[in-house]
Amino acid sequence: MTIHMNLGEDSYDILVERGLLAKAHEYLNLNRRVLVVTDTGVPAEYAETVAALCKESVICTVEMGEASKSLEGFGTLLSAMLEHGFSRKDCVVAVGGGVVGDLAGFAASAYMRGIDFYNIPTTLLSQIDSSIGGKTAINFGGVKNIVGAFYQPKKVLIDPDLLKTLPPRQISNGLAEAVKVALTSDEVLFGIFEREDIQSHLDEIIVRSLMVKKDVVEKDEREAGLRKILNFGHTVGHGIESSGGMAELYHGECVALGMLPMCGEEIRPRVIQVLKRCGLYRVMAYDWDKIAEAAFHDKKADGATVTVTTVSEIGRFEMLTLDCTRVVEMAKACLDGLRE
Amino acid sequence: MTIHMNLGEDSYDILVERGLLAKAHEYLNLNRRVLVVTDTGVPAEYAETVAALCKESVICTVEMGEASKSLEGFGTLLSAMLEHGFSRKDCVVAVGGGVVGDLAGFAASAYMRGIDFYNIPTTLLSQIDSSIGGKTAINFGGVKNIVGAFYQPKKVLIDPDLLKTLPPRQISNGLAEAVKVALTSDEVLFGIFEREDIQSHLDEIIVRSLMVKKDVVEKDEREAGLRKILNFGHTVGHGIESSGGMAELYHGECVALGMLPMCGEEIRPRVIQVLKRCGLYRVMAYDWDKIAEAAFHDKKADGATVTVTTVSEIGRFEMLTLDCTRVVEMAKACLDGLRE
Repeated sequence: MTIHMNLGEDSYDILVERGLLAKAHEYLNLNRRVLVVTDTGVPAEYAETVAALCKESVICTVEMGEASKSLEGFGTLLSAMLEHGFSRKDCVVAVGGGVVGDLAGFAASAYMRGIDFYNIPTTLLSQIDSSIGGKTAINFGGVKNIVGAFYQPKKVLIDPDLLKTLPPRQISNGLAEAVKVALTSDEVLFGIFEREDIQSHLDEIIVRSLMVKKDVVEKDEREAGLRKILNFGHTVGHGIESSGGMAELYHGECVALGMLPMCGEEIRPRVIQVLKRCGLYRVMAYDWDKIAEAAFHDKKADGATVTVTTVSEIGRFEMLTLDCTRVVEMAKACLDGLRE
Repeated sequence: MTIHMNLGEDSYDILVERGLLAKAHEYLNLNRRVLVVTDTGVPAEYAETVAALCKESVICTVEMGEASKSLEGFGTLLSAMLEHGFSRKDCVVAVGGGVVGDLAGFAASAYMRGIDFYNIPTTLLSQIDSSIGGKTAINFGGVKNIVGAFYQPKKVLIDPDLLKTLPPRQISNGLAEAVKVALTSDEVLFGIFEREDIQSHLDEIIVRSLMVKKDVVEKDEREAGLRKILNFGHTVGHGIESSGGMAELYHGECVALGMLPMCGEEIRPRVIQVLKRCGLYRVMAYDWDKIAEAAFHDKKADGATVTVTTVSEIGRFEMLTLDCTRVVEMAKACLDGLRE
């Protein structure tokens, strides 16, 4: 199916269909020079399949992991394009997860001040979340996604068949973002998580999640307000993720933990049940000082506040501006309470 | 006076007035963290004057010259913002010529995916030309302006008083861009160059040049078509500039030479007269092989074509698509002919 992102001059289509990878040239203009960007964690045949469909292709394989989202990685892609004589009419295709999409998208945005960018996400997390919204970025000075551009792809191809090679923990990682949008905006999707077999409903989960994100991004392309609901669970989740080093828990696992304190007590047992079904419920000991520091490192002053999204009824959200200390207290009370 | 750039969501004002620098805070929101970017060729008091008007300022002084427009220079500005805890609500002010504006604008476009950018150009060339249009860039892999973003400033302050410290050759350098727009689009401006005292008409020359550029940029923000007329003289001019090393001739001097072959023979004596009045007429020996290579290095194939702007009547332009070899022949016939 086709989901049209309506963003004026920056509009584009997201196609969701099994088997898309092998016929990418039917949907993307590959009749030119194409930089195919992938990483060492993605099966090499995915990028090779795309490259074989191009008039002239250069495959650039970066190391798997956040470390590739660097100023150096950015320079590597730019050099590859320059060396191969890329013009403004050539393009970049990302074949990989969020790291590849963020890095390749930023390079495409900057080369000659912007050339066409296509995204073929290969992880559930990137199919659901990071492949739409137009946020490209690299990490810099130890801060994630601090440098980048809002730059929309010309087309996104989502092929759920590519998920077959993904480890179960990576599937869970992606489901966290789907649970997130179900909680804030889609009661029906939440029902699927509560009652249906998740693996056999992946296509529907992807499409429903994309529809929610489409609505939000269309209303708020530059993240001025509403788009903050996409950060549901991310304030505390980001604190947990950064405090423990990104290697221990996956992003989705941290977001799952971050959502729980922001859910009303009445619905929390249902949320826990869903997180368990998704393989996302992890109870552990937390270092709250470190988490607070990581979550609010840019808010040094006493009495600093943060706007968080909360959910007290499935499919409805509220935005609250709270003291940072209050947010940590809520997280502590909830998550430490679950350990007992 | 105020020139309003009408670019939808990206609209902004250009203020032209003597004495603006010292009251920058009346027009710019400096009540926040401000990165003031300048270079060693700009009188230090200019940046210091702006910094003193800010709530919290960091001055970043890069080396004068194109070499600062690098990936490293970009990283230097990003590091400075990160170290000083800049948030999305803080801003960047460029106080300098094109190098400073291009580099600072690109850093502002990328930091947290874009923070406010103000430009206070201090050279005639940047006041007339590079401070508007939203083109930011760095050089990379030996290619000028190959990496960057279309990113509009929030406001541009043009203070002609700042030109008092500029050497005469730098004034001439800026006048070339004004002669350019006069030739393609403003017969009245050309008349000023022919008949009036240039130095005492600088404010009017700046404003008239900006009005032409405003029209062009508003109609073609992303350089899809019309904006190519701003490249009048630049195809051959760029070839001359790159072939000789950028150190020998200034950009404007090269553009002046590049315009001559693209002017009809009937008006050429008048153009030469104006270039002489502007201190822009330099007759010399040219290495046409090198110039052709530099101008068309990205067009390797035989029979490659290029679209150039030509002027056969003052204030009117035509666009022609010609063989690259034909363009070189025209330049050779004209410029070598002038040596005899």
